[in-house]
Amino acid sequence: MTRRYFEDFAVGQVFAADEDYEITPERIHAFAAEYDPQPIHLDPDVAAREMFGGIIASGWHSLSVTMRLVVHSNIFGGAPVVGVGVDNLRYLEPIRPGDRLRAQAEVIGVRPSRSHPDRGYLTLRITTTRQGNEPVLTQEWTVLVPTR
Amino acid sequence: MTRRYFEDFAVGQVFAADEDYEITPERIHAFAAEYDPQPIHLDPDVAAREMFGGIIASGWHSLSVTMRLVVHSNIFGGAPVVGVGVDNLRYLEPIRPGDRLRAQAEVIGVRPSRSHPDRGYLTLRITTTRQGNEPVLTQEWTVLVPTR
Repeated sequence: MTRRYFEDFAVGQVFAADEDYEITPERIHAFAAEYDPQPIHLDPDVAAREMFGGIIASGWHSLSVTMRLVVHSNIFGGAPVVGVGVDNLRYLEPIRPGDRLRAQAEVIGVRPSRSHPDRGYLTLRITTTRQGNEPVLTQEWTVLVPTR
Repeated sequence: MTRRYFEDFAVGQVFAADEDYEITPERIHAFAAEYDPQPIHLDPDVAAREMFGGIIASGWHSLSVTMRLVVHSNIFGGAPVVGVGVDNLRYLEPIRPGDRLRAQAEVIGVRPSRSHPDRGYLTLRITTTRQGNEPVLTQEWTVLVPTR
């Protein structure tokens, strides 16, 4: 893999892994048991009586799967993804057992550092979809990228 | 547990679990292997040559642990935490093996829904610290809360 540097990026580029990730009941349970131990993720009887009418995945599970898919897109050619911040994250739809997630990263901003000539910042619009087309989660990442 | 409703919240309230969560090497590896498979989280030799000089935890790992700690704070008295969005998330420091995380949620905004009288929205300032006092991660959540 060839690393990509700040100079290699431009607004409008899109990166996506050609794969999806199935949110199985077992994966929902394993994630939630450790990181989001609420009955809407763990107990079908309780979840049926709550707002979503059944088990849904933790939002943090969907976000973590999104990270996996962005890493697999190879956006930085193997260089680390160095997150600075996340803005405008919106949960659009509850994620349910059997949903198959995909993710893409679109470059929407490119900004050299004023104080450090060895780096710049990208703004990435991250969109997570299910079943190939329905957006379920959107967010904007600011990432630090070394210059060449 | 007694559920808390929208009317039970006011700006300035703070909720926190009286516990911490250790980011052990094993936990860093297990999370990253599934959700953030990058060498800076998985391979000590590669990580030593990269920006942070050693293994660090995935940002999404620290965020997921923060969710666990907020759930354990019992902020909603057992009612579901229904996230609408996240804003102003900032990674302040890399999280390293052995760090012990804590989290607190402060109510910084309270807004009834204009269109749906059965609900309102809270803005929560979430602060994650390590070793009891150093902030490592901050974010603001918008959550939906039913009215009484």
